Amino acid sequence: MSTSLGGLLSLLDASGLRRLVDRDARLVAMISVDDVHRAARLRLPRPVYEFVAGGAETESSVRRNRSAWGAMTFRPHTLVDVADRDLSTTVLGRPVAMPLLLAPAGLARLVHPDGELAAAAAAGEAGTVMALSTGSSCTIEDVAAAASGPLWFQLYLWRDRDVVAGLVQRAAASGYHALCLTVDVPIVGQRERDLRNGMTIPPRLTVRNLLDASWRVPWWKGFLGGREVTFENFLGVEGAQNDSAAALGAFVNKQMIDPSVTWDELPWLRELWPGPLVVKGILTAEDARRAVDGGAEGVVVSNHGGRQLDGAPATAAVLAEVVDAIGDRAEVYVDGGIRRGTDVVRALAIGARAAMVGRPWFWGLAAGGEAGVARVLEIFRTEIDRTLALLGVSRVAELDRSFLG
Amino acid sequence: MSTSLGGLLSLLDASGLRRLVDRDARLVAMISVDDVHRAARLRLPRPVYEFVAGGAETESSVRRNRSAWGAMTFRPHTLVDVADRDLSTTVLGRPVAMPLLLAPAGLARLVHPDGELAAAAAAGEAGTVMALSTGSSCTIEDVAAAASGPLWFQLYLWRDRDVVAGLVQRAAASGYHALCLTVDVPIVGQRERDLRNGMTIPPRLTVRNLLDASWRVPWWKGFLGGREVTFENFLGVEGAQNDSAAALGAFVNKQMIDPSVTWDELPWLRELWPGPLVVKGILTAEDARRAVDGGAEGVVVSNHGGRQLDGAPATAAVLAEVVDAIGDRAEVYVDGGIRRGTDVVRALAIGARAAMVGRPWFWGLAAGGEAGVARVLEIFRTEIDRTLALLGVSRVAELDRSFLG
Amino acid sequence: MSTSLGGLLSLLDASGLRRLVDRDARLVAMISVDDVHRAARLRLPRPVYEFVAGGAETESSVRRNRSAWGAMTFRPHTLVDVADRDLSTTVLGRPVAMPLLLAPAGLARLVHPDGELAAAAAAGEAGTVMALSTGSSCTIEDVAAAASGPLWFQLYLWRDRDVVAGLVQRAAASGYHALCLTVDVPIVGQRERDLRNGMTIPPRLTVRNLLDASWRVPWWKGFLGGREVTFENFLGVEGAQNDSAAALGAFVNKQMIDPSVTWDELPWLRELWPGPLVVKGILTAEDARRAVDGGAEGVVVSNHGGRQLDGAPATAAVLAEVVDAIGDRAEVYVDGGIRRGTDVVRALAIGARAAMVGRPWFWGLAAGGEAGVARVLEIFRTEIDRTLALLGVSRVAELDRSFLG
Amino acid sequence: MSTSLGGLLSLLDASGLRRLVDRDARLVAMISVDDVHRAARLRLPRPVYEFVAGGAETESSVRRNRSAWGAMTFRPHTLVDVADRDLSTTVLGRPVAMPLLLAPAGLARLVHPDGELAAAAAAGEAGTVMALSTGSSCTIEDVAAAASGPLWFQLYLWRDRDVVAGLVQRAAASGYHALCLTVDVPIVGQRERDLRNGMTIPPRLTVRNLLDASWRVPWWKGFLGGREVTFENFLGVEGAQNDSAAALGAFVNKQMIDPSVTWDELPWLRELWPGPLVVKGILTAEDARRAVDGGAEGVVVSNHGGRQLDGAPATAAVLAEVVDAIGDRAEVYVDGGIRRGTDVVRALAIGARAAMVGRPWFWGLAAGGEAGVARVLEIFRTEIDRTLALLGVSRVAELDRSFLG
Repeated sequence: MSTSLGGLLSLLDASGLRRLVDRDARLVAMISVDDVHRAARLRLPRPVYEFVAGGAETESSVRRNRSAWGAMTFRPHTLVDVADRDLSTTVLGRPVAMPLLLAPAGLARLVHPDGELAAAAAAGEAGTVMALSTGSSCTIEDVAAAASGPLWFQLYLWRDRDVVAGLVQRAAASGYHALCLTVDVPIVGQRERDLRNGMTIPPRLTVRNLLDASWRVPWWKGFLGGREVTFENFLGVEGAQNDSAAALGAFVNKQMIDPSVTWDELPWLRELWPGPLVVKGILTAEDARRAVDGGAEGVVVSNHGGRQLDGAPATAAVLAEVVDAIGDRAEVYVDGGIRRGTDVVRALAIGARAAMVGRPWFWGLAAGGEAGVARVLEIFRTEIDRTLALLGVSRVAELDRSFLG
Repeated sequence: MSTSLGGLLSLLDASGLRRLVDRDARLVAMISVDDVHRAARLRLPRPVYEFVAGGAETESSVRRNRSAWGAMTFRPHTLVDVADRDLSTTVLGRPVAMPLLLAPAGLARLVHPDGELAAAAAAGEAGTVMALSTGSSCTIEDVAAAASGPLWFQLYLWRDRDVVAGLVQRAAASGYHALCLTVDVPIVGQRERDLRNGMTIPPRLTVRNLLDASWRVPWWKGFLGGREVTFENFLGVEGAQNDSAAALGAFVNKQMIDPSVTWDELPWLRELWPGPLVVKGILTAEDARRAVDGGAEGVVVSNHGGRQLDGAPATAAVLAEVVDAIGDRAEVYVDGGIRRGTDVVRALAIGARAAMVGRPWFWGLAAGGEAGVARVLEIFRTEIDRTLALLGVSRVAELDRSFLG
Repeated sequence: MSTSLGGLLSLLDASGLRRLVDRDARLVAMISVDDVHRAARLRLPRPVYEFVAGGAETESSVRRNRSAWGAMTFRPHTLVDVADRDLSTTVLGRPVAMPLLLAPAGLARLVHPDGELAAAAAAGEAGTVMALSTGSSCTIEDVAAAASGPLWFQLYLWRDRDVVAGLVQRAAASGYHALCLTVDVPIVGQRERDLRNGMTIPPRLTVRNLLDASWRVPWWKGFLGGREVTFENFLGVEGAQNDSAAALGAFVNKQMIDPSVTWDELPWLRELWPGPLVVKGILTAEDARRAVDGGAEGVVVSNHGGRQLDGAPATAAVLAEVVDAIGDRAEVYVDGGIRRGTDVVRALAIGARAAMVGRPWFWGLAAGGEAGVARVLEIFRTEIDRTLALLGVSRVAELDRSFLG
Repeated sequence: MSTSLGGLLSLLDASGLRRLVDRDARLVAMISVDDVHRAARLRLPRPVYEFVAGGAETESSVRRNRSAWGAMTFRPHTLVDVADRDLSTTVLGRPVAMPLLLAPAGLARLVHPDGELAAAAAAGEAGTVMALSTGSSCTIEDVAAAASGPLWFQLYLWRDRDVVAGLVQRAAASGYHALCLTVDVPIVGQRERDLRNGMTIPPRLTVRNLLDASWRVPWWKGFLGGREVTFENFLGVEGAQNDSAAALGAFVNKQMIDPSVTWDELPWLRELWPGPLVVKGILTAEDARRAVDGGAEGVVVSNHGGRQLDGAPATAAVLAEVVDAIGDRAEVYVDGGIRRGTDVVRALAIGARAAMVGRPWFWGLAAGGEAGVARVLEIFRTEIDRTLALLGVSRVAELDRSFLG
């Protein structure tokens, strides 16, 4: 490289112009999840962005999740040897490189054509778990093929138990490590941004969307060039009208979700599934006990990212109650408002085995496909590592509540 | 419908243009009470809007009412069979389809020519109670004729007890189920927006109003085409100068309100009225006990929507105290800041039999007449139902304080 | 008046145009102290406005004063006979028509040529006390002549005790009822707005002031047409350089204020003054006890309107402590952030004998001279009366802490 | 001076124009640290400004530091003889004129060519301590020559203990009074503003910087006319690539900082250094005890100005815990969010021997070199003095927690 060209590139770099043309430079320049979030917002059509970002009704629980972590202060230990830090831990008996997992979230191909495949690949590369949503836009089998790390498969106790059994068997056959049963969707919460946007699965071309999104060329290029985005795992399920993705979505949301399911049916699932079972959507000590009594090896403290019951407490506010209730018998995970490594460390200090993130990996996926998800995981890894060092902690197992103010 | 026309309408629909010309589409597109509120604000001349929206002095109690509900978090139960949910309950012995009643609020014809008649019809259709204000702009008898559900009649202990007795007898004769005595108006609170707007009953045409309201054509059309808006129930009361609505308003507000009334007079009313008696405007355990000791079957915890004593506590903050004091002897209702189904469920969890709303049905009425009030009731019904399901509750009677954080 | 003219005036009235030309209509249209404040702000040159409005350093105590009253909620009693309300009370043995007094504040002629004379006249008309500041811009004797109600004379224990004795004797000779010793000015607090504005006594004509104030014609007309604004009570004091108001101001502020004064000297003043003695500027139980032990019949809980020690607590927050300490031996007054009748009633419920206001009467004076101060007093009287009625209280003596939440 | 010229200058003064051309007039017109901060912001290129102002990650600890002091209210004592106030105290046995010290902060020449020399001179003139940062842009020896007051030398336990020993010996040889060991940098916190700005040591000329800073002529003139800004104390350290300041910075930050240091090594330093030892970066009682057990005569409660661990508690919130733990055995200092004399007095009332400020002296230096630092110290001195007087305190030793609400 001649000096004058080098100088020119260096000038470009310093002035930020290089990022306009170089995706990797762009991703590296994103130094926090908030940066990735902003980039995703710019790339996504507004209805798609709001489908991911939005919550139920007034979105009070979305805000509460976030602010509750931020309000917790630390009690750091100084002059501790932290030269040799290790973020690894085990989740349900399997080693992971860091205590941060990808939470289940459906229809990832809405934000990027590579969808869940990209996320699974990035999670595997980073040495951590991806939990695949039942509502995935890629099949159980394709995701298993793309992944190199442990996978969880998330499901609901659908009205048609044969469908459930079929999904469970496919997950087992594909080598998924754990089953994650979501229990906070007896019905679907009201996400008012979606209603206002006329958000449909798949997104429709409308005058408004086109006007709004006219300059979001990369997204539309990917979207129009790909297959229809739909609930891939339900294609072929008996009774589903498979003539269109929209009809399939309605079938799944309206006809499969079963509000009559009770804790009595947990043993049935426990029998069906050979591996570890995790119950997701727990907010009280009572329900945590019921889950573990029913055979679960883990629970996820979650309010579904503030997307189900508006007025649900911050997960940060109830985590300690759940840990105290069943922490000696099962592993406790938590999601909701985790946006910084400091949040992950707070969760671990309270007693969580690991934290999970949903929207952050969607932002990464939207911003840069697999490389974007990898960037988000790298940001978390770096932040967790830094926070441990600054707290005087070398291994995540050393964290306990004495590190919180 | 030809394909091309269908396509065009579908395009219109998606772009929101259809709502400009179709009231029902407009109402369906309102998915929260806040949406209805915004629509009403656009339709009403500012002095009329502020007459409804405003509160006393600094309006601190209006804000406090609202924020106190929002600050309460839930403790949901998961994996409970909620397939078969039932919102019905009884109020004062009469079945209602849901625990949400229309609070008494006067002069509804200010916001829509159909006034209280429309609200009573909508409440009846929805299977719930309308409480008619003494200050109604439709007569006791006309409202009874329009209604199909239980009615309450709200009144004050006016200076002239013959007037009171006359109103009570008319309500009894018209089949009203309960009498609701308001006790928090020894004098009228200072609503500064009304004073600033020169708000009069009926509204006057002034340069300012015309400038402000020039494009609010539907409201003016309805207003000018209808009868004068006034306190219909007092037409013909002896001593009232009935030559104009303004004079009648002054007569009622200034000459009939009696600041000397005491609890000693409750038995007189109790004697006079054969049905259930409810005392509205209670904010302390002491007053709740006095009301029940005086013969009331129910009390409404209320600060008059923040329109009387500025600095009154949020009703959400004192509801438990009142329930604890008299909940075993009488039914407790609550109004003030109820804008979501989650708020209604919070009130019930604390121990209220039902919640009441005032401004929300005015916004519905302003936005769409009877259909607008029906839309508000439908929004509440849907939200209460959804909240119950997400809390793991099938019947409102199952709610108690263990569901609150 | 012909119909057409009447119609025109009525139209003017309704559209608010009349207020442009009619001061009394303008004052009546001000329905809260905040309205009067806004009017004053418009009329005053910015440096003069900020001289009155400002506080010490970050002004945190100014804000804290205000918000602390607003945060207190009431426990009203309903159905109490409040037909016959009486706001009168006694302060230091003298009857007043309402529990709201004018606090001492100097240099009132800065905001209106009639200065303290107008305020004293308005207070007398309203049947309440004016406390005249030592730093008055009208003499002790002139104010006494203008007043018809009880007067307090506020003073400091100046470095030169002969000056103090002289002022005390003049106050006694002029019939002042009580002496009010301010104890929170060992040195003058830093009011940064004044420093930034180059605020001087008297105000100087500068390029900036003229540009800012070019359209505030009424104020400049009054200011330039009147005598120089200065500390009238110190004219002729030996040692004062009386050649200009600015020099006199510097003399008073810098050379007379005595930071060495202690409680030991209170008995000397107690001896000197035959009437009741009030100590102003108390924020703790300890100091309140010292004041009463030293012979004071009353104390004023005050942080000097947030103008002295930035970081001083809200007076509302420490009033109860002072009442509990000496309320059985002396009368307790309070100022700071009182802007509504509800605030006055809160103070009385905690145990104050009366509340005092400083800035509000300055805003009234600026907005309309004596009529403006009278308007402020009338607003307070109406608001206190209304609040009593809505609390179920007929006499101020009935108020106690059971009326607060 | 002729009258007409005097009049013109007086007019200039009043209108603020004079400050445009006269630095001393400009500094005197800055009456609070916030004023100096604003002036510095205007003079500094944005990347340099943000290098000083910024904190770690979300900067929550920067905000928390500031708000925690502001939330503490005082309990003043009135009528105490405060005529003869004395701000002097001793720090580690050496008298200082006031309880406010300059905290260590590196690379001061970034904001002004005179750098740490100017600050040391100003601190000496004001009779207080300057703590020189290891990362100083002036040498230990040059600063000692410029100073007339006591100096502290701040250092880290670097990876290469010979370097540490060399620095300690140089500090001893130069007459530094105390050694201040910083313990909260096992690794460097993530300052996202610097990453975003591409902030390098020394600053690079880039298109963006030039565009942003084009009118900040004085700064660029000083910067370009001076020596390169670098870590002067490390020039010549073996192993450092001294061919450029940027390389030296990377060497220091990346290769010298040692995350393996433990409390076991404190005695080694204690042996090495003959004078008082202070440990800086303490936030808990446990670490404070470890420091004193290891031989420290003092600790600084500090979260590194919110620049290291985001989520660290406000220093104001943990100061009492540290004082209670070791206040009888060692002196306690505190920094973080101190911006007013009231904050210093709050810290002393809790039990600190003195407060320290970092950013404020950088703002002073940026705004006016040595005179700017002197102005900041003078503002603090005046504010502390005023606060003492208004609290009824003559000597700083009289302060205790009874003065806080």
